[in-house]
Amino acid sequence: MKILNLVFFLMVFHFGFSQENLNFDQPKEVVSPEIHGDNTVTFRLLAPTAKQVRIESDFLPASSSGKGSAEFKKGADGIWVYTSASLPSELYSYNFVVDGLRMLDPNNAFLIRDVSTIVNIFLIGNGKAEMYQTKNIPHGTVSRRWYDSPTLKLNRRLTVYTPPGYEASNETYPTLYLLHGAGGDEEAWIALGRTAQILDNLISQKKAKPMLVVMTNGNASQSAAPGESSAPMIKPVFLQPDMFSGNTEKAYPDVVAFIESNYRVKKDKANRAIAGLSMGGMHSLVISANNPDMFDYVGVFSSAQLQPKDAIAEVYANFDQKIKNQKAKGFKLYWIAIGKDDFLFRQSNEFRAKLDSIGFKYTYKETLGGHSWSNWRDYLVEFAPMLFK
Amino acid sequence: MKILNLVFFLMVFHFGFSQENLNFDQPKEVVSPEIHGDNTVTFRLLAPTAKQVRIESDFLPASSSGKGSAEFKKGADGIWVYTSASLPSELYSYNFVVDGLRMLDPNNAFLIRDVSTIVNIFLIGNGKAEMYQTKNIPHGTVSRRWYDSPTLKLNRRLTVYTPPGYEASNETYPTLYLLHGAGGDEEAWIALGRTAQILDNLISQKKAKPMLVVMTNGNASQSAAPGESSAPMIKPVFLQPDMFSGNTEKAYPDVVAFIESNYRVKKDKANRAIAGLSMGGMHSLVISANNPDMFDYVGVFSSAQLQPKDAIAEVYANFDQKIKNQKAKGFKLYWIAIGKDDFLFRQSNEFRAKLDSIGFKYTYKETLGGHSWSNWRDYLVEFAPMLFK
Repeated sequence: MKILNLVFFLMVFHFGFSQENLNFDQPKEVVSPEIHGDNTVTFRLLAPTAKQVRIESDFLPASSSGKGSAEFKKGADGIWVYTSASLPSELYSYNFVVDGLRMLDPNNAFLIRDVSTIVNIFLIGNGKAEMYQTKNIPHGTVSRRWYDSPTLKLNRRLTVYTPPGYEASNETYPTLYLLHGAGGDEEAWIALGRTAQILDNLISQKKAKPMLVVMTNGNASQSAAPGESSAPMIKPVFLQPDMFSGNTEKAYPDVVAFIESNYRVKKDKANRAIAGLSMGGMHSLVISANNPDMFDYVGVFSSAQLQPKDAIAEVYANFDQKIKNQKAKGFKLYWIAIGKDDFLFRQSNEFRAKLDSIGFKYTYKETLGGHSWSNWRDYLVEFAPMLFK
Repeated sequence: MKILNLVFFLMVFHFGFSQENLNFDQPKEVVSPEIHGDNTVTFRLLAPTAKQVRIESDFLPASSSGKGSAEFKKGADGIWVYTSASLPSELYSYNFVVDGLRMLDPNNAFLIRDVSTIVNIFLIGNGKAEMYQTKNIPHGTVSRRWYDSPTLKLNRRLTVYTPPGYEASNETYPTLYLLHGAGGDEEAWIALGRTAQILDNLISQKKAKPMLVVMTNGNASQSAAPGESSAPMIKPVFLQPDMFSGNTEKAYPDVVAFIESNYRVKKDKANRAIAGLSMGGMHSLVISANNPDMFDYVGVFSSAQLQPKDAIAEVYANFDQKIKNQKAKGFKLYWIAIGKDDFLFRQSNEFRAKLDSIGFKYTYKETLGGHSWSNWRDYLVEFAPMLFK
């Protein structure tokens, strides 16, 4: 029996794993990002032969040509360095651009996919982004599960958050159905939206009731997120073939039926909420208008009533009559939130004008910012506590 | 009410999302990787000002200095191109190196993290890697759930695969506990190991019995994978403080107790298996030797008996006596698999010699290759069908 020397063990593993995926090229001293006590952040990249290194990030003011950008400075050691201003609490995303080529920070293993683009992330705490952090509190369970949609004739994947204590309890729970925007899928709200962390924190602080959150795939032609279905692993695209057909809205009762026959949930209007961002906000308002006995709570984040061309008539026709009917049937909360800089701001105003014209009562929240996950996370933090009270 | 023009919608979304993370810099015609009908693969990168572009991948023969590498050629359009030989069926990983700087393929959104290194992946089907593909068959559920470890005094995260039909059934199921290697965590087997796809396929083909697979975190000081706990989001490291202390092995019965009081599983030795790769193989053999009434099936993948310095005496002491006891108590399968090029090959031989010397019956599988996920996926494909028969 050998006494294992850890240094030797590391060496041999080092060699062994270098056949695999591990990267020992970046010297240990390259730390990036480094978040300082004053919430400035230093980014570093070892690139001795590069001529220009930039960072693109949502913490930098956007230019007319797109994302905000800032220049690194090269040190004598070949390490390029950039330090940000002191940043407000937020979950930020960024990438580097080296001699014109977009790349990720090789020293940051934390990434999120947004459609086909991968970005690095980092989190500045001590403020609103505390809600996006995993804390030492009870945690819900996050499951990826498949359900049959008879309407779409597809077996499909969804993400279900069950609150802390769900499994051991005999209680029944209310359910929030949470819908992504164009380009997203059943991974979007859990990854970019930090739904599990937000719900864990809200529930632990007794700001929200324990609830299930069901995150569906709103692309009616897809079984699952890219890479998670039997479809080829090709580059995810922003526009899906069946995105604006109305099929997602038409088939949504399949999801509700699946959840209510497979989870210990309350099966009445008072215990169902639906909310979505952008395309998912449009889906939410259409689904709730088509099923006026289904949801007492509706959230429309950064969206409006948008009538796609060629959408299924039975789903999209007679919308004005449907919302009159929805008003007559009653509901507890119809919450509309949008940022002043959102490109759908005008359409949102027009939608609210229509609701006003028929005396349809909604709650309106106007925020700073645009069509961004920063806003959508905030909206979830504000919306979830208003549910099921 | 506006009739939405999809082209306009795309334009405005395009603008709206460009404040976010989407990247429209790479023209659409850059497809990478492109898998051809003959299983050659073309990789492309638009990099007009680059001087040298290489690919590093496990499909290329490894050099003495590490991973296999090949050169791209630059086209007149600024797009660098490399086409591989015809590749055997496998899940491959790769990255690019541009003028000495490691980067990912910006046109491939499919990635896996291996400790702190991110790699792109692609899959060549029509062979063994068919088992790693999501097929149009019934799918199990994959849950990330938290459990209390009284021994470690930690609330910890694990990944549970429940087989297709589990939720709707009244049956009880057997359980495979599946352990990762050094540098891994509760995400390793599901992401790099393709456990869900492999089990879905084996169960659908009636090669394996429906079973739960519980993928634990073998770093006793960690609550959860990097980025999934309340620990700071710093670069994941290969060696964890409490990795070779014996605490993982000592605390493992906490996991079994949690699973058996929270899932509909069979609670006897005949219906429990434990297997692991590398460090996890060492954990598996130590846990099964310390708990000779717990597991009828043990899998030791690319590992051996390795005695860490300073490990907890009660767990690591008297190993020879413990395996004699394990032999006396009996078991159904003790499966040892290792590649001829594995850096632990000699240690594996020494371990088997020790087992031989006491007449401890095991099944030995010697394969090609080394300490690699390619082998570990194969071992799971071969091991799971032998369980619970």
